Amino acid sequence: MLLLQRAVVSEFRQACRLKSTPSKLCIRACSTNDSFQPQCPSLTFSGNNSSTRGWRVTGTLLGLGAVLAYYDYRCKAAQESPRIYTREEVRSHSSPETRIWVTLGSEVFDVTEFVDLHPGGPSKLMLAAGGPLEPFWALYAVHNQSHVREILAQYKIGELSPEDKVPSTLKTSDPYADDPIRHPALKVNSQRPFNAEPPSELLTENYITPNPIFFTRNHLPVPNLDPETYRLHVVGPPGGQSLSLSLDDLYQFPKHEITVTLQCAGNRRSEMTQFKEVRGLEWSTGAISTAHWAGARLCDVLAQAGHQLCETEAHVCFEGLDSDPTGTAYGASIPLARAMDPEAEVLLAYEMNGQPLPRDHGFPVRVVVPGVVGARHVKWLGKLSVEPEESYSHWQRRDYKGFSPSVDWDTVDFDSAPSIQELPVQSAITEPKDGETVESGEVTVKGYAWSGGGRAVIRVDVSLDGGLTWQVAELDEEEQRPRKAWAWRLWQLQAPVPAGKKELNIVCKAVDDSYNVQPDTVAPIWNLRGVLSNAWHRVHVHVHAAP
Amino acid sequence: MLLLQRAVVSEFRQACRLKSTPSKLCIRACSTNDSFQPQCPSLTFSGNNSSTRGWRVTGTLLGLGAVLAYYDYRCKAAQESPRIYTREEVRSHSSPETRIWVTLGSEVFDVTEFVDLHPGGPSKLMLAAGGPLEPFWALYAVHNQSHVREILAQYKIGELSPEDKVPSTLKTSDPYADDPIRHPALKVNSQRPFNAEPPSELLTENYITPNPIFFTRNHLPVPNLDPETYRLHVVGPPGGQSLSLSLDDLYQFPKHEITVTLQCAGNRRSEMTQFKEVRGLEWSTGAISTAHWAGARLCDVLAQAGHQLCETEAHVCFEGLDSDPTGTAYGASIPLARAMDPEAEVLLAYEMNGQPLPRDHGFPVRVVVPGVVGARHVKWLGKLSVEPEESYSHWQRRDYKGFSPSVDWDTVDFDSAPSIQELPVQSAITEPKDGETVESGEVTVKGYAWSGGGRAVIRVDVSLDGGLTWQVAELDEEEQRPRKAWAWRLWQLQAPVPAGKKELNIVCKAVDDSYNVQPDTVAPIWNLRGVLSNAWHRVHVHVHAAP
Repeated sequence: MLLLQRAVVSEFRQACRLKSTPSKLCIRACSTNDSFQPQCPSLTFSGNNSSTRGWRVTGTLLGLGAVLAYYDYRCKAAQESPRIYTREEVRSHSSPETRIWVTLGSEVFDVTEFVDLHPGGPSKLMLAAGGPLEPFWALYAVHNQSHVREILAQYKIGELSPEDKVPSTLKTSDPYADDPIRHPALKVNSQRPFNAEPPSELLTENYITPNPIFFTRNHLPVPNLDPETYRLHVVGPPGGQSLSLSLDDLYQFPKHEITVTLQCAGNRRSEMTQFKEVRGLEWSTGAISTAHWAGARLCDVLAQAGHQLCETEAHVCFEGLDSDPTGTAYGASIPLARAMDPEAEVLLAYEMNGQPLPRDHGFPVRVVVPGVVGARHVKWLGKLSVEPEESYSHWQRRDYKGFSPSVDWDTVDFDSAPSIQELPVQSAITEPKDGETVESGEVTVKGYAWSGGGRAVIRVDVSLDGGLTWQVAELDEEEQRPRKAWAWRLWQLQAPVPAGKKELNIVCKAVDDSYNVQPDTVAPIWNLRGVLSNAWHRVHVHVHAAP
Repeated sequence: MLLLQRAVVSEFRQACRLKSTPSKLCIRACSTNDSFQPQCPSLTFSGNNSSTRGWRVTGTLLGLGAVLAYYDYRCKAAQESPRIYTREEVRSHSSPETRIWVTLGSEVFDVTEFVDLHPGGPSKLMLAAGGPLEPFWALYAVHNQSHVREILAQYKIGELSPEDKVPSTLKTSDPYADDPIRHPALKVNSQRPFNAEPPSELLTENYITPNPIFFTRNHLPVPNLDPETYRLHVVGPPGGQSLSLSLDDLYQFPKHEITVTLQCAGNRRSEMTQFKEVRGLEWSTGAISTAHWAGARLCDVLAQAGHQLCETEAHVCFEGLDSDPTGTAYGASIPLARAMDPEAEVLLAYEMNGQPLPRDHGFPVRVVVPGVVGARHVKWLGKLSVEPEESYSHWQRRDYKGFSPSVDWDTVDFDSAPSIQELPVQSAITEPKDGETVESGEVTVKGYAWSGGGRAVIRVDVSLDGGLTWQVAELDEEEQRPRKAWAWRLWQLQAPVPAGKKELNIVCKAVDDSYNVQPDTVAPIWNLRGVLSNAWHRVHVHVHAAP
């Protein structure tokens, strides 16, 4: 029986590798209240035109596997009677050593034996270890089938204690107490303010990053804003009228939709830290995500307020409704020329992947500045004005700037460097992960590549030998609009593992349409804030000895 | 006497280092017939607001030195009677071993003893060794003073033979026979077609490159066009009128003036060749120059012909009046969006540094596409049209594209890469030169930095130890217009030579305002055509042992 079941799983795996296998991956975009009930999927992505989307699982094979697994494990359920566990107890079972428990509703399951059989791969299931399955099933609606529940039923070991059936709330004296509940898959770099990134194995699973795992970079507590009373204050030109726009007012402007990748200036900072200490959050490769945004164009709103492009340099200053205990709000600015240029497509966005913005991403309105560093995409936007100077905020003038490796905190002169606007060309490997063991034979390398300023990525070179020789990766087929390539390209390379190799030093580097390239190494671009970390991405893996 | 004279020269040298010393450097811009009489300077640059312009020589000290030198050498002239030499004989005296001869008019001088005393530095005088002084005196009008002629008179050793007083003409059967006469300072990479670059020590002597030494990249013989009968054919839109514009017609459009750096895609190719052979001319660091251009804006001319920006991608195709024996003309194209954007400032230029274009640079009209590779700045412009596709010319489709290092001539697919338009960030060291010996104590490093697409250079880092530690160079004060930084920045660093060092590995790297940086090494950006060579520039020098 076990042998038969193994054979079926092996078939699952083969199905996963078939590029042409049609598959549907349903992703529930996060709604404003950020809850994770695996209810009706509201966005459906067809995965059959892209090799990077979704799991390669056929419903037929899954169904067959489920039936076989059902018979294999039904006796187990009959023999054990349910016990009561606390969430704390469940959390302590999150590794093969302690066994791997998960919950669904009020039920507790020990899925240790199933991890290696999980059609999406063991690492995906391990993301839920010690916690609830709902947030992951909400992402991957393929689970919402009766035979999947039947498989799971075989692993049930008990029930959650009644007081643990709803998550505990945060203390109310905490300024962050009102922050939304987040997806447990996020790798948290800081709880307060909340800063988190999707794990590498989920990051490039989809071209569009699902809202619940879109990287989150907050500087302050998340404001809880009432969409009914929300107003955006648009300061008019000298002698002109200011505007106070409700959400309904913003909906009256032509709705503009674009797919845009956002990247934090600190993405991949952890690689700089490895060379020499920097000040900043330890972002790995995940401080970057892509969404489809909709909203009013900033140029339309500025025009309505009577603003015009002027000969002298000017800036549009944004103020968020998030603030610190002294009342200082988050702020940033962009040049007026970009703001007024219809081709630059700067948005006051109120939708993210077809849903109202999630609270963590600026509900009800945020700025989206295509091709520009995340720090200028001000969330919870409360006010905008046109000024002769850049925003005087800390984040515009005393942060988010690049310096020479020779500059330290004793010698830094923040006025000597321009604020980061457009970002340089970037790429990273998301599969395999550093330290992983890959099979001999063939290796699949996957990742993302992106460049600032609307410059399209035209090529990604991948090396398996630390940069001595290179192969050209296959890029996704997503449309790249000339001068408006605002979103990343996902890429992959399938290449033979050179015979006899016990390890691989995998490297990637991207080229954009200005033929800018990434620098070879981190040390010469090191800077005291650890921003702009775009050296070649390097991953070291072991090769599993052939049997 | 000799000691006194040495002391004066030492004062010259000190004056050279004084940043605040006012100096005038007069440069005669090249006229259309490319002759080099050192007559009335038509362009005067004030050097007192920039440390990188001109020689730091005071007229007073020069005068004093001349008087002293006059007494020192007058007896020499009296003792030797003039002899007759051929140009061939003069040419053979171009090194300290053979002695260093130069000519002025019909006179021949042996300046071997003066080389080390030359206020502009020995290397500048050596550029004229074995040939005429006129082209260099035309560049540096400071020589046009009676006391300079008096110094020179002391070194006279004879006269040119009568038949050698005018340069020999080229054979008339040669398709290149009608090419203009070029400045002898140019380092020639190919005579036919003519391709040449200014020597490193002249390249960054001036922010604006004098016309006679502006790098020249010709693909075909230089056409000899009559400005009276010249016409530019502008193909009209479907159903519209075409235009045939004379030079006078072009002068009727608003005259637009901009300072723009042009760079050949092959600049610094010789560094790629050192790694692995490529096909292409062996450019050093001088396939880049800067001029002040004036002409009609392409967008104005296109508008007059009835062209409009369209929703679908389109291209403006240019055709030169230079052609090969089969009649195939040089051609290239740029996207219509750039051509129609007034902010992109694409010119149909008829003036270069205040003069009609020199023949080598496209007389009477060339395209200037700020921020874009030189190959698109079509010279001797004969025709332009708006097309749904890029130019079908060899130079657009089968050349001037970048590829992965893994691509060779057996595997290259030219259609797989976009044509080069905007160039990546670039910088190079022009002083000291590779292999030179520098004094212990302090070293002065000079160079240029530039980026494509109007992106300003915001920082240049210089290392004296091969890239382990860095210092920030001082940038010139030239205006950098936001998004329209079309011209290079000259930079310099004065730094102590670390005690005990016998050699220095000097490296430079630039950062632009998108925070793109240059790659560390050449090998990973190597490509079969040797274009886009923008790795860190490295110069190895010896340090003169302290006395």
